[in-house]
Amino acid sequence: MPAQRDTPRLGKGRMEAFSDGVFAIAITLLVLDVAVHPPGTPLEQVLHAWPAYVAYVVSFLTIGAAWLAHTALTDRLAQSDWIFLRLNLLVLLVVAFLPFPTRLVADALQHTDAERVAVTIYGLTLLAIRALGSALAEYPRRENLYSPRGEGEEHPGEQRKLLPVVIGYVIAILVGLLLPGVAVAFYFGIAVYLVVPFREVARLLFRLS
Amino acid sequence: MPAQRDTPRLGKGRMEAFSDGVFAIAITLLVLDVAVHPPGTPLEQVLHAWPAYVAYVVSFLTIGAAWLAHTALTDRLAQSDWIFLRLNLLVLLVVAFLPFPTRLVADALQHTDAERVAVTIYGLTLLAIRALGSALAEYPRRENLYSPRGEGEEHPGEQRKLLPVVIGYVIAILVGLLLPGVAVAFYFGIAVYLVVPFREVARLLFRLS
Amino acid sequence: MPAQRDTPRLGKGRMEAFSDGVFAIAITLLVLDVAVHPPGTPLEQVLHAWPAYVAYVVSFLTIGAAWLAHTALTDRLAQSDWIFLRLNLLVLLVVAFLPFPTRLVADALQHTDAERVAVTIYGLTLLAIRALGSALAEYPRRENLYSPRGEGEEHPGEQRKLLPVVIGYVIAILVGLLLPGVAVAFYFGIAVYLVVPFREVARLLFRLS
Amino acid sequence: MPAQRDTPRLGKGRMEAFSDGVFAIAITLLVLDVAVHPPGTPLEQVLHAWPAYVAYVVSFLTIGAAWLAHTALTDRLAQSDWIFLRLNLLVLLVVAFLPFPTRLVADALQHTDAERVAVTIYGLTLLAIRALGSALAEYPRRENLYSPRGEGEEHPGEQRKLLPVVIGYVIAILVGLLLPGVAVAFYFGIAVYLVVPFREVARLLFRLS
Repeated sequence: MPAQRDTPRLGKGRMEAFSDGVFAIAITLLVLDVAVHPPGTPLEQVLHAWPAYVAYVVSFLTIGAAWLAHTALTDRLAQSDWIFLRLNLLVLLVVAFLPFPTRLVADALQHTDAERVAVTIYGLTLLAIRALGSALAEYPRRENLYSPRGEGEEHPGEQRKLLPVVIGYVIAILVGLLLPGVAVAFYFGIAVYLVVPFREVARLLFRLS
Repeated sequence: MPAQRDTPRLGKGRMEAFSDGVFAIAITLLVLDVAVHPPGTPLEQVLHAWPAYVAYVVSFLTIGAAWLAHTALTDRLAQSDWIFLRLNLLVLLVVAFLPFPTRLVADALQHTDAERVAVTIYGLTLLAIRALGSALAEYPRRENLYSPRGEGEEHPGEQRKLLPVVIGYVIAILVGLLLPGVAVAFYFGIAVYLVVPFREVARLLFRLS
Repeated sequence: MPAQRDTPRLGKGRMEAFSDGVFAIAITLLVLDVAVHPPGTPLEQVLHAWPAYVAYVVSFLTIGAAWLAHTALTDRLAQSDWIFLRLNLLVLLVVAFLPFPTRLVADALQHTDAERVAVTIYGLTLLAIRALGSALAEYPRRENLYSPRGEGEEHPGEQRKLLPVVIGYVIAILVGLLLPGVAVAFYFGIAVYLVVPFREVARLLFRLS
Repeated sequence: MPAQRDTPRLGKGRMEAFSDGVFAIAITLLVLDVAVHPPGTPLEQVLHAWPAYVAYVVSFLTIGAAWLAHTALTDRLAQSDWIFLRLNLLVLLVVAFLPFPTRLVADALQHTDAERVAVTIYGLTLLAIRALGSALAEYPRRENLYSPRGEGEEHPGEQRKLLPVVIGYVIAILVGLLLPGVAVAFYFGIAVYLVVPFREVARLLFRLS
């Protein structure tokens, strides 16, 4: 019964502005952890910092994917309410936390004894972002907060990608207990999978050819 | 006489955008103070950093609660004026300051001699955020800046929760002079109390059952 | 001839959003420079950090005042153009630079030999913010970018306060070459003068009595 | 056929807000890398930090120019789509990365052995920002996402400046392999060229005389 609450209980403008702010800051703070350290020639120092670049790209794409999902969600939202704002805070709490495990991974890939712990915490944070993000998308469905128009048309691939991504994270976390480097490659793959819209790209390439 | 000033003296758009920015940045900067330090195995280092996680969550929820209250306030605002903007700056000055005592607490919980000072400063900052936030909500009432619609319907629980929260902070500050760790638990409890909408959750659970 | 360009040459939405972002971030980054340092008991460390608190409050109020002036300016703006955007970038370049001299002052007040240099750079930055801010307010006047409504009603006190503030900064910079501590007190006074709306407060107190 | 997709596939509000956030944060984080270091008198320390000031100004103007180009682009956009959002993420990934090579350059100009590596990475990042920015401007043209009005009137100088700027960056990167300091002067010149609207300034001066 989507028409049950015709009067919007709460505008969504400030929730979107605040969320955009937190996403934008978290994604931009990641660069603060990219740094080079002695010893070595300048070129060696820059090349040896590769784990920091990998961690930067993976976390940037992951937060970017979370922002895309958040945008897709609120785009379909007709109205917000005070519980939604609080669930949203919880999602942002985990998103804003990601720079910390990112830094752990960037440091750990250089000191292999710490890799396992860092990569596990990193994976758990990624899993929490996705799981809480799904809960956030589920609540408006139960409470009829989505606009009628939005019921039918889904964000391309967003819901479809949920289950494989969660399974992917769980496998990567387990793999990471033995082979942390492989897990990081997994996380990179999942981020690319989330961000790259394969169907649209295929359609685009098809049209160009 | 809410209709006395029909022509808005000042739009509230930029005040909201600027405030959202400061809230979002202050809440996201908190993660910069989460860090692990030697000695110990990697796992021990991560586990020993628990005070930083506690401080992160408490401060995140407190700033989140302050943002919720700010949103509830400006949502009911029909117009703004130049004094309101300045009172708002004062609130933001204290909110933007919170990462500093948060860092103090995170450091102090590991070095118990500094706990008392850090936790007291932390509590005073939390109290100042809430007290100035109340003053900010009071000014538009005196100046008839709220929209007529907003007079009756309050943000659920916001005003109702003011007095117990202030009393809670004062008690926690006093307790913290003797038992700093207990005060931090108090602050966590108050933050949860502020963020979790118990009535709505109860109603939700009731409906689901 | 304010009606000469009826079609807005450029919306002002993104310029405001971007400016709000830079102001909000610069004002919130100030807290990163507030820190305590050994030696001493925890209480002594916190008390000895007073120059950092002073620098935080002065810079916060100065950026706050610059944001108020910027809001007053763009509120009266009917439209923007590409030159205005670039002048605005120049203002933001100096505003975003303020955390650096703030840090210099916070450090220097503890090591008196560096005070003179730090306070002079600080004063020159404050002067540059105000001078460029005035140039930014002047350009739309020449180019008829203000809305007709805005021509008559000025932001209360903004223009009126320009000359005394510039003179105050110049005097404070000169004084600071000999007595840096006095100059900081001056800068605090000017910030308070800029932020506190004395006429409105007087009117408010008069009405309450 | 610009009228082919009359119904906007996606609002551009949140994309603009998120992008403004990332631009604003990246541009403001630059100041965190401006710092003075011993030895020397306070004045010498401040003067010896000149490479940090140069790097700050060049990067600030470069991000500012990128923001201007982004604003010009989205201003003409009638609608957005999910591929555009992802291309936009890619541009932001490189823009948000710029503080890292900026820090490298600021450090390297003081330790000449590292100059060559730092300046080359810096140049490649600048080139990537511009190249990806061009790709971002190209996509809506192919997909008919620009508003009809925007087809004719270009952002003054934006497209016209693309080719000389790309050639300038390539030359500067090659020059920087031998003479890093000269390359930094080049990057400063290109940033000024991008930000200063020579035609408008000439027109303005002509009118004033």
